[in-house]
Amino acid sequence: MSDRRSRVIEGAKALGADAALALAPTTVAWLSGISSQTELGPSPFRCDPAVLVTEDRVVAIVSEQQAEEAICLGCEVATYPGYSLGELDPVRHFRHVLVGLVGSRIVATEPANLPVEIGAALRFKDATALFCKERAIKDPDEIERLAESIALTDVGQGAVKAYAEPGMTELTLWHLVHAAMERAAGTRLPSWGDLLSGERTALVDGAPSSRVLREGDLVLMDVTARLHGYWADSCSTIAVGRCSDWAIEAHGHVHDRLVSAIDSVGPGMRAGELDSVLRSGLDYPHHSGHGIGASYHEEPRIVPDSVTMLAPGMVIALEPGCYSQSEGIRLEWVVLITETGAEIMSKHRLEL
Amino acid sequence: MSDRRSRVIEGAKALGADAALALAPTTVAWLSGISSQTELGPSPFRCDPAVLVTEDRVVAIVSEQQAEEAICLGCEVATYPGYSLGELDPVRHFRHVLVGLVGSRIVATEPANLPVEIGAALRFKDATALFCKERAIKDPDEIERLAESIALTDVGQGAVKAYAEPGMTELTLWHLVHAAMERAAGTRLPSWGDLLSGERTALVDGAPSSRVLREGDLVLMDVTARLHGYWADSCSTIAVGRCSDWAIEAHGHVHDRLVSAIDSVGPGMRAGELDSVLRSGLDYPHHSGHGIGASYHEEPRIVPDSVTMLAPGMVIALEPGCYSQSEGIRLEWVVLITETGAEIMSKHRLEL
Repeated sequence: MSDRRSRVIEGAKALGADAALALAPTTVAWLSGISSQTELGPSPFRCDPAVLVTEDRVVAIVSEQQAEEAICLGCEVATYPGYSLGELDPVRHFRHVLVGLVGSRIVATEPANLPVEIGAALRFKDATALFCKERAIKDPDEIERLAESIALTDVGQGAVKAYAEPGMTELTLWHLVHAAMERAAGTRLPSWGDLLSGERTALVDGAPSSRVLREGDLVLMDVTARLHGYWADSCSTIAVGRCSDWAIEAHGHVHDRLVSAIDSVGPGMRAGELDSVLRSGLDYPHHSGHGIGASYHEEPRIVPDSVTMLAPGMVIALEPGCYSQSEGIRLEWVVLITETGAEIMSKHRLEL
Repeated sequence: MSDRRSRVIEGAKALGADAALALAPTTVAWLSGISSQTELGPSPFRCDPAVLVTEDRVVAIVSEQQAEEAICLGCEVATYPGYSLGELDPVRHFRHVLVGLVGSRIVATEPANLPVEIGAALRFKDATALFCKERAIKDPDEIERLAESIALTDVGQGAVKAYAEPGMTELTLWHLVHAAMERAAGTRLPSWGDLLSGERTALVDGAPSSRVLREGDLVLMDVTARLHGYWADSCSTIAVGRCSDWAIEAHGHVHDRLVSAIDSVGPGMRAGELDSVLRSGLDYPHHSGHGIGASYHEEPRIVPDSVTMLAPGMVIALEPGCYSQSEGIRLEWVVLITETGAEIMSKHRLEL
């Protein structure tokens, strides 16, 4: 983790700041390993953790109840009262501790996540673009974490292939996928899946519904799950029984594009070029890919005309698709950009 | 919904404001019905929706992709570019539309959710306490929504009783509960469950783990789920086979306290008094209850010494418990405070 912390301090100095203050949950996870509970939305008992990085310290500002986790992750902690049987006022307590800790330093931080009452008491510079750029290049420990979470979505993709059958609802299939991933992890996982079948595959994305799978349906599942703060991402499209000729042909095209793109990608290529390679001959309304990490969608975005230069250490999910009025296909693998090309990190099969 | 909107406008005026601006996802759901996706954490494609309430308009500030949902819910919309194949900059777009819409009005809003760059461009008053107080009294449409979501956690509680058996992991039991609730809803649901078995029940709370259920174990499940923006909450503790004498006795005490409290509760009682009735003879480290609504924990909090006066329309989850060094019991039902007493909204059984 020390690599990215050094890069952040260097970048903060270039902005005229003395230290970096991470406020967005993704940046906090990236710099400290602390990943917030997301499934219930914002907590009435605490604020999202913040992390102050200086030349020689990494201090997490967390509620008393979160201190142990932060210490286990190697952070120094500054705590404030969170849950209590008395009056709850985590915002005031958090502000007090944060402002006291930062003192007169100028911090490079994220204004979109800086509430007005804290902002008024701090000297700060906008580091949103800096964090965004630095997060795109993964350190070795991040690549390891991503490999672990990708292994779980591989399990999810295996489950959709193993369990999908006529008569089952999309929702029931999702429950089997979700349970398989959490069983493999041995723990609960924040996760999300687009799971579409039959004519719903033309919708591109959407949560599983009570639609019942029928013989000849396509099933498109795009699943993301977070382990230790890092999100995996993957998509496959399978056929339940014999599918349409359109589906077979479209699947072939999408598969070819994905494989060709992985063959050609490497450091020095522009994101926009990679988008062209993936999109060539296909028509889809979404990006061709994106970085993954502490967020499920981050730089580099693989979109038309992007001049972002791909570089070793980037971890990118590539997901070309093809959609008709009545059916849709999407395939997604994650690759790591290496010194000489790219390495496929996903292990799920892409067969129809 | 017009009741609470009128109350909010009246309250905003008393604060010296011309309009109310909801920024917290819970307040937004309360005033507009728009409930944010939470499971993936903050989105890189959009900001959380905001809602401006004036004397004669309710305007939701949402990304273009969210406009349809907001219109279906009866809101006027002001949209900004969210997802795009070009550069993503939802924060800047959101700020521009919001600041333009508010104009020179003084808005009663939530400073903890007001980013510094938007706050600098607005005239505002702090309405956090106002929203908090007003949210505690539910309108009839909110009580209906809560009844619907409570019916789903009832299904979850039924599933834990139906499926728990020796040899099963906590995680697998949770998957069955979770699937049963979503099957009943016919859709995905944001949800969370404490699910503890055996000696883990003494921990009070925690996510399901890979611990294997054994004959004689207690299983404590506290589950919350959100439907149409409103969170239900419920807890039961059951025995897998023959449990300890301590468990039988403790369960009896907790059950007695819950039933006595429901018999005695009504409008005009202080929250602190209700806490005393529930806590009497028991020892637990948590609150005795809390309001539920657009948040899973809101006013009135049932905690020692609270002088908050209970009033008709409050919907409160009551959850006394009893914990030894090696086991724990907690039971939770939701009640609606009526003009004359309280009505039990939960229908799950509390038997051991």
